[in-house]
Amino acid sequence: MTYCVGMLLEKGLVMAADTRTNAGVDNVGKFKKLHTWEFPGERVFVLLTAGNLAVTQAVTSMLSEQIAHPPEMGETLKSAKTMFQAAHVVGSAVRAVKASDEGFLTANGEAFAASFIFGGQIGSEPPRLFNIYAAGNFIEATADTPFFQIGEHKYGKPILDRVARSSMELGEAAKMILVSFDSTLRSNLSVGLPIDLLTYETDKLKIEHTKRIGPDDPYFKMLSTEWSKALRTAFSNIEALDI
Amino acid sequence: MTYCVGMLLEKGLVMAADTRTNAGVDNVGKFKKLHTWEFPGERVFVLLTAGNLAVTQAVTSMLSEQIAHPPEMGETLKSAKTMFQAAHVVGSAVRAVKASDEGFLTANGEAFAASFIFGGQIGSEPPRLFNIYAAGNFIEATADTPFFQIGEHKYGKPILDRVARSSMELGEAAKMILVSFDSTLRSNLSVGLPIDLLTYETDKLKIEHTKRIGPDDPYFKMLSTEWSKALRTAFSNIEALDI
Repeated sequence: MTYCVGMLLEKGLVMAADTRTNAGVDNVGKFKKLHTWEFPGERVFVLLTAGNLAVTQAVTSMLSEQIAHPPEMGETLKSAKTMFQAAHVVGSAVRAVKASDEGFLTANGEAFAASFIFGGQIGSEPPRLFNIYAAGNFIEATADTPFFQIGEHKYGKPILDRVARSSMELGEAAKMILVSFDSTLRSNLSVGLPIDLLTYETDKLKIEHTKRIGPDDPYFKMLSTEWSKALRTAFSNIEALDI
Repeated sequence: MTYCVGMLLEKGLVMAADTRTNAGVDNVGKFKKLHTWEFPGERVFVLLTAGNLAVTQAVTSMLSEQIAHPPEMGETLKSAKTMFQAAHVVGSAVRAVKASDEGFLTANGEAFAASFIFGGQIGSEPPRLFNIYAAGNFIEATADTPFFQIGEHKYGKPILDRVARSSMELGEAAKMILVSFDSTLRSNLSVGLPIDLLTYETDKLKIEHTKRIGPDDPYFKMLSTEWSKALRTAFSNIEALDI
């Protein structure tokens, strides 16, 4: 399984993905699920992927190949004029992989499973964030719901539901997302460290801050310990049910 | 959907179930999913149910009818000599409903979905707790894993994973389970108030404490507010990621 969170803030984007993949519990691997394309001063894109790894890697490879060798028809991530168009480019790549592979997957008893969180900024347009489905269609984040989750999303949703606001600082949002990962990691073995974390500040048009967070990362260790302690204290401070 | 938690403590049992049922989002109902059978001084049983409501109601009705009109062969909840035998009685009822209904459900494109948490005490045997599956087989709680969840279990699992200990007092365990419900209620519309909560003290051999917790319950309102406040404070107290 996988856990990814993307959040659209007034001040930018925070995107995070774990790196564990598994086919059953006895075939566990480590693969990057946070992918970036960057044209400094012009545009940046971040894609988080969940689902069948062969499908999601095919999509990211296709997006890169299109940039290197632009097709005669249609846009690429390099040529798209808006983030809406760029999300269409990703959706079209998903549809192309679906058209080529779904029959073979189905014949093998497997489903065409893939989902994506896609964020970025092009030129003077504000940053935008999309949740792209296996059908290639997508929805866009707004101030009402500024975050998307894909993969094993339920364990880590309560903290986001309580705390997420699009007015947060990038560092606060990153902290919140890491708390959400901490809860997920504790309760589900299919999500594992390291976490890839990217923060993007609006209008920078380049990627300055990415961080791979492993088990020895001092900030994540502190956060995990302090959060556990604080939860226990908070829990003790509430009076027990009088029965 | 549904959310139920059952916990086995050194001092007894705590069992809780929500009351929302839904077939799609436009057909929402309220049904009791916490069922009890009591023979004061002799034995008590609590059954929490999740899954297809027709299936789970058939199982509970069958268990009651067997007590009223004991079959010539086999045990009933009234005659079982141990909780292990009583769990078998429940499992057999599940298998009987499966044998009679599964073909019709499948023909209608529906699955035979049902799961149960079954706890209780018979005579001088200590209280025991079981998770009974749709196949009628079951597992039993131990001190290592003293709780079971069925239904929409992921949102409320992190707090249980962090706090649950079989040495807890009944009132503390009830508080923890209500925090777990609070997180689930906030993040998933298919789980709804009121919550039925039962606490059973070892060796009482009768049911003294049941409580239906609705939106106006003062304890649950306090817990929900205080927990939210405490989480926000705990979150604020952790330093943000320095980016």
